Amino acid sequence: MRNLKLTIAYDGTNYHGFQIQKGQMTIQQVLQETLSKIFDHKITIAGSGRTDAKVHALGQVISFSTTGRIPTQNIVKAAKTLLPSDIAVLDAKEVQPDFHARFSACSKQYIYKILQSKLPNPFYTNYALIIDQQLDIQKMQQAADIIIGEHDFSSFKASGSTVIDPIRTMYEANWQKKDEQLIFTIKGNGFLYHMVRNLVGCFIEIGKNKLSIDEFLRILQAKDRKKACKTAPPQGLYLDKVFYG
Amino acid sequence: MRNLKLTIAYDGTNYHGFQIQKGQMTIQQVLQETLSKIFDHKITIAGSGRTDAKVHALGQVISFSTTGRIPTQNIVKAAKTLLPSDIAVLDAKEVQPDFHARFSACSKQYIYKILQSKLPNPFYTNYALIIDQQLDIQKMQQAADIIIGEHDFSSFKASGSTVIDPIRTMYEANWQKKDEQLIFTIKGNGFLYHMVRNLVGCFIEIGKNKLSIDEFLRILQAKDRKKACKTAPPQGLYLDKVFYG
Repeated sequence: MRNLKLTIAYDGTNYHGFQIQKGQMTIQQVLQETLSKIFDHKITIAGSGRTDAKVHALGQVISFSTTGRIPTQNIVKAAKTLLPSDIAVLDAKEVQPDFHARFSACSKQYIYKILQSKLPNPFYTNYALIIDQQLDIQKMQQAADIIIGEHDFSSFKASGSTVIDPIRTMYEANWQKKDEQLIFTIKGNGFLYHMVRNLVGCFIEIGKNKLSIDEFLRILQAKDRKKACKTAPPQGLYLDKVFYG
Repeated sequence: MRNLKLTIAYDGTNYHGFQIQKGQMTIQQVLQETLSKIFDHKITIAGSGRTDAKVHALGQVISFSTTGRIPTQNIVKAAKTLLPSDIAVLDAKEVQPDFHARFSACSKQYIYKILQSKLPNPFYTNYALIIDQQLDIQKMQQAADIIIGEHDFSSFKASGSTVIDPIRTMYEANWQKKDEQLIFTIKGNGFLYHMVRNLVGCFIEIGKNKLSIDEFLRILQAKDRKKACKTAPPQGLYLDKVFYG
């Protein structure tokens, strides 16, 4: 019996998110079906976390145990042959029996991409949020600086979601400009459901000068989802990396 | 009656090429249907040229005449509302009555993108040719230099195609490396059907050291399609710009 850790990239455009759901095409389902073929027995995977419909991954991590005989170094190639072209296995490693993609993770990094463009751009439609005005990236960075460290992120959880412990620690929150793109990178020890998209929704309002840094600070302090801004749409979000001890 | 020139970008992934074909979804069909709504009468467009299934455009040009009343400066916005997100009107201009997207064009520029990567990459599958080895870009550039100027490109026409005059003049043919991407830019006064993809097919063989510069020169001089290499796949090709006098 081997315990395996696989690193996965996917274009989430045509999927109903990561987690398996009856009657919907999901990343987990396609991975499980493909891996079951490769290992010649039913495989059930654990992901580091869910991603929503249309959200992408550059480095999602999954783990599973198998009695299958294919050598670990051949898994990437076998998966390349069998997976659809919008999902790829980037790496496969044998890990300790107690490794679990979700429970062993100590931090995660997400990216959110915005394209500043007055014109529609067919090559970014599914891969970034297109905004037809210039955003004030300095102000957005000032707001991002506020969330560094340990905070109660209740204001940025998904509306209606219940979470026992809304405290998370953010290690990095950086806005970068690259040509016409604004790229937000955020790394933390964990994220509430919709938290990155809810934060980005506020940062965009700040970038548009519709929300002040003080108001953002008050939203964070309110610990109330109703105070925050609109959730930024899914297609700009990428699960970038998952870190383990 | 106005004669209009529109600049169009499209992600060709889900289309059966530019030109209208019965029973197939094409760029021309979607544009004509949308423009007919915008101008409130049946619009038939002329494109600067066809693009094949899965080939993209950053700056395709179309022209058509209309009695419709929408002001020229409102066309981009109206099209943005009505077109699917993989096709966009970037610019609309009123032009002289004798302007024709195809017959008035004096030169065109194409781009071909290659991603050098041992791993599959879901974000490039439809937007570049992924090659799992390093190519010798210096040699590819040496070969590209050979095609500058006026040549008989019969060896690079589509197999089976008949063309009255296979002589074309190339003004630019440059390979550039950008991170893991190799980007080929070619500008000429015209291109035979499949010519860019057939040239790129040979350049790739040269980059892999499977074809020498001398052999490439002999292929060009042979004026015989049977001598050339495989046609490079469509998803790496972009119609970049069309130039008018």
